[in-house]
Amino acid sequence: MKISSGVHHSMSSQRYKITIAYRGTHYHGWQTQQIPPTWKGAAPLSGLGIPTVQETVECTLRAVVDHPVILSGSSRTDSGVHARGQVAHFDTTSIQIPPEGLRAAVNSRLPADILIRDIAAVTEDFNAITSTVKKRYEYHIWNAIERTPFNHEMSWHRWQHFNLNAMHTAGQMLVGEHDFASFAKPGHGRESTIRTVLAVEVRREGEMVIVGVEGTGFLWQMVRIIVGTLVEIGMGRYSPYKVPEMLAAKDRKAAGPTAPAHGLILDRIWFDENALRPPG
Amino acid sequence: MKISSGVHHSMSSQRYKITIAYRGTHYHGWQTQQIPPTWKGAAPLSGLGIPTVQETVECTLRAVVDHPVILSGSSRTDSGVHARGQVAHFDTTSIQIPPEGLRAAVNSRLPADILIRDIAAVTEDFNAITSTVKKRYEYHIWNAIERTPFNHEMSWHRWQHFNLNAMHTAGQMLVGEHDFASFAKPGHGRESTIRTVLAVEVRREGEMVIVGVEGTGFLWQMVRIIVGTLVEIGMGRYSPYKVPEMLAAKDRKAAGPTAPAHGLILDRIWFDENALRPPG
Repeated sequence: MKISSGVHHSMSSQRYKITIAYRGTHYHGWQTQQIPPTWKGAAPLSGLGIPTVQETVECTLRAVVDHPVILSGSSRTDSGVHARGQVAHFDTTSIQIPPEGLRAAVNSRLPADILIRDIAAVTEDFNAITSTVKKRYEYHIWNAIERTPFNHEMSWHRWQHFNLNAMHTAGQMLVGEHDFASFAKPGHGRESTIRTVLAVEVRREGEMVIVGVEGTGFLWQMVRIIVGTLVEIGMGRYSPYKVPEMLAAKDRKAAGPTAPAHGLILDRIWFDENALRPPG
Repeated sequence: MKISSGVHHSMSSQRYKITIAYRGTHYHGWQTQQIPPTWKGAAPLSGLGIPTVQETVECTLRAVVDHPVILSGSSRTDSGVHARGQVAHFDTTSIQIPPEGLRAAVNSRLPADILIRDIAAVTEDFNAITSTVKKRYEYHIWNAIERTPFNHEMSWHRWQHFNLNAMHTAGQMLVGEHDFASFAKPGHGRESTIRTVLAVEVRREGEMVIVGVEGTGFLWQMVRIIVGTLVEIGMGRYSPYKVPEMLAAKDRKAAGPTAPAHGLILDRIWFDENALRPPG
């Protein structure tokens, strides 16, 4: 078998789809930081000494398949954000390793806060970024008088009384195709701010209030701004019926504050079934 | 009001009982390490640079009450062990601070992984060590094929199939007054190894198997050795009916291995009601 270094698309290359769970607490987000071309300093702007999830998994994969690997991740989760089901694809020339063996070898080498849940062989029709059809995020709010010394890295502590009905009502007004410019951090660099939210769910499990948001795609910090706005509505700062007005303003200042990163979990990503046909 | 430094027992001193929750992951156990008198080196034997929970809480209390504070903790939890309800007492001359104000002031200064759940004024009849009548520990086992990237610091991963009935049966044979010499780490320094176990409970909650152990008192690593033994029995390595034999041997080698520290949680401590009469 021909062995070559780097990623290529010859007959001896195989594409894999991997599903990854991680606790983002100790990582500088998913994506390896790019140094902007305008940067003239001696060191990158951010991520100094703090690895990203992407580079941690890439390094481990490289050690197992014995050539450099580039991961393309579906969601660029921010620093501190967690994932139950991040998805990425990569190409490898080490096609002699069966996926289950690859998964076990990688998991045994990864740090304890990252886990490969699944590795599947796919065709080159599959692309973790462009084949995405739907994503689900969950936001966890520890809603109790006392903070928690156990879940503090995976939930946002808000002690105030929440009106969950008001939060649910507000959430339903976000469902549908809207211009979400008011719910995006400026500087997102996307041409269109029109997105489709498919479902917003607000529920309580003991002391945890869980906000689930499902959509075809999201703008930068969109879920965290939705949650920050729903929390203000839950505390009675404004009416759920103000949401259409917020959307119409197309101005970040019209919506509520951005909920912190550490309460956010990328739950699940769905893909175009045509892109998921098994290879061969 | 007379202000004096250090701990004393004059009329201007007040004793407090505090209940503390903590995630033990980043601490060198509860208790401040003592340098043995035979130690001739330049630095303490252990705990180098890693604080204990006790010294962290003592430092924070000192900043609030403005004099040195010594905490007497009921349970000397090992490095990595967690607590929902550790209890300690301390004496202070700052009797002008109401307990609720003291609690809020201390909690706002403590690290996120330690929380004072309760502070109550007590008489000097109360002693967190000698007034204890009962303690409950919980041990969490993540019993799934995959490890978890989220709960790994608060549970022990065992993927094997467990026979929970066998574990429960074995647990009931430990209930009662027995010589637990086989279930103690040698070097515990206790005169008697006779203890009374009041209840052993084995239950499953989703992927987590929870072992609860209640007793009047425990030897060093006794709960972890009980759990290590129950896990061997759950995996069918030996019969639950071997437990009386293990107890009779009075030899550490007769029982199972010691389960790791990070799955153990000190759940609750009960005290002699006479020692808990309110002051004044």
